[in-house]
Amino acid sequence: MSANATSNADTRGYDPNLTPSVINAMGPNTPPRARQILSALIRHLHDFAREVDLTWDEWFIGVKFLNSIGQASSPIRNEGHRISDILGLESLVDEITHKLALKSDEAPTTSSILGPFWSPNTPFRENGDTIVLSPHNGQVTWMHGQVTDAQTKKPIANAVVDIWEASSNGKYDFQDPENQVPNNLRGKFRTDENGYYGFYCLKPTAYSLPTDGPAWQLLQLMDRSPMRPAHIHLMITHPDYHTVITQLYPDDDPHLKTDAVFAVKDGLVVHFAPREGDPKAELDLEFNISLGSKSIPTLAASRL
Amino acid sequence: MSANATSNADTRGYDPNLTPSVINAMGPNTPPRARQILSALIRHLHDFAREVDLTWDEWFIGVKFLNSIGQASSPIRNEGHRISDILGLESLVDEITHKLALKSDEAPTTSSILGPFWSPNTPFRENGDTIVLSPHNGQVTWMHGQVTDAQTKKPIANAVVDIWEASSNGKYDFQDPENQVPNNLRGKFRTDENGYYGFYCLKPTAYSLPTDGPAWQLLQLMDRSPMRPAHIHLMITHPDYHTVITQLYPDDDPHLKTDAVFAVKDGLVVHFAPREGDPKAELDLEFNISLGSKSIPTLAASRL
Repeated sequence: MSANATSNADTRGYDPNLTPSVINAMGPNTPPRARQILSALIRHLHDFAREVDLTWDEWFIGVKFLNSIGQASSPIRNEGHRISDILGLESLVDEITHKLALKSDEAPTTSSILGPFWSPNTPFRENGDTIVLSPHNGQVTWMHGQVTDAQTKKPIANAVVDIWEASSNGKYDFQDPENQVPNNLRGKFRTDENGYYGFYCLKPTAYSLPTDGPAWQLLQLMDRSPMRPAHIHLMITHPDYHTVITQLYPDDDPHLKTDAVFAVKDGLVVHFAPREGDPKAELDLEFNISLGSKSIPTLAASRL
Repeated sequence: MSANATSNADTRGYDPNLTPSVINAMGPNTPPRARQILSALIRHLHDFAREVDLTWDEWFIGVKFLNSIGQASSPIRNEGHRISDILGLESLVDEITHKLALKSDEAPTTSSILGPFWSPNTPFRENGDTIVLSPHNGQVTWMHGQVTDAQTKKPIANAVVDIWEASSNGKYDFQDPENQVPNNLRGKFRTDENGYYGFYCLKPTAYSLPTDGPAWQLLQLMDRSPMRPAHIHLMITHPDYHTVITQLYPDDDPHLKTDAVFAVKDGLVVHFAPREGDPKAELDLEFNISLGSKSIPTLAASRL
């Protein structure tokens, strides 16, 4: 579809020239990708307004809401990110960015959203170490698995498994400095020559998005829960493979079907089994990870 | 189209269940109109992202831009309104809100956007008065015309013609207190028994939108001019008729085809003629106004 294509949708009796005139107002110095994105954005915005016969008063409620998003944001709060997440948009752009052009039986581990709590400062630890450094009320879990190539199924040595999770009070280390030492419940681990990793962590705890500000207003209007299911964040990297950023969810979490940010995906719901004979952990979680070679393009890139 | 309808657009290899799951997450207490609007908004937002294969990095540029809009806003600056205007959205919702279900030969005077400079405090003045109260470098104009019924073509007495315009320096009274007295270039006039109004004003002057902040960033990315063509704002009201809010543009303005906010419409481009024998004005502008009876529904309401 060309950048200047008008919608196929009927313009419902409204001026059919407005949308093309806005799109065609872009001058010759607009970068091609910006023109493509903005043309589609303008067309969908206008089609949306015509489709619902959006009134001036309704639009102005939207304008005030739009301004409130930035006004609620601060260096430690990204409300635009949150609004986007509760509309499912980050989950969608994550899929668009990371889905590889592979058949389903060769697909790597499904990605999910990064969220705002990843840290670039997480230290490397040794396989067999624990990331549980501060007091908690949770259940210690031995998490382990193998990292393999999605196509060849062969083990991948020296992949880095970066994990981060909230504590049993639903807070991450830097949200909770009075109870947690820096890098509590964070760690980076290298897979061994057979692709194996393993460490002690906590079975994660569900938590709520903030119940103030524009995102909460929107959730209330939509009669939705602010809860996220409990989850463990993972980022798996290796120089020869596409990075996988993902989240794992306990299969007994009551919020799996109503995640406020739509980040629960097939293959990411996992079972925490009882662990026998290990005084350091009461639960066991096996999670095997599959990575796609960088020689494989993303689905989006495969269309270029 | 039902509120839960999924797009007809192909989902381009991405999960076809995401968009319905976000829409269907709305609970039973969502008001029906909010559900209709938000369902369409979510569907178009997702279709937009899939259509252009929007990447996580591009989306995050958008998130930061979104936050900057509210951060640039203040009690005297509505950046969300401005962004909406330069994307043509206020022009569109104006048409959606005000277009009447009438044949084109019975259509009332075309509406245009209100903009941010209308004042609720403008005083009534007498026909024949001037609204030019402060020094200027413009051309004084005798503006006059008749207000009639769009269908019967009969004159309408006691209609209120509310006019506001910027001075020859491109500023409105409350933006320019050092040069303009309050209500300079503002006035409300009642039509006489034959529907006539008349007053002295200025031929308007073109001006630029602010060249700082997010709206200017977006205009630059789109390689567009920040100029608005010169214009006179009008709001015409009568208890028995739909209000008409509109703008008039001199036919010799160089920015008519490139209005930054897409508010130039058919029937609103007018000719300022030389005026003979009036020491108070060098130009003459006749503008006749046509109003639609409140017994006629809007186009949108006619579909209910």
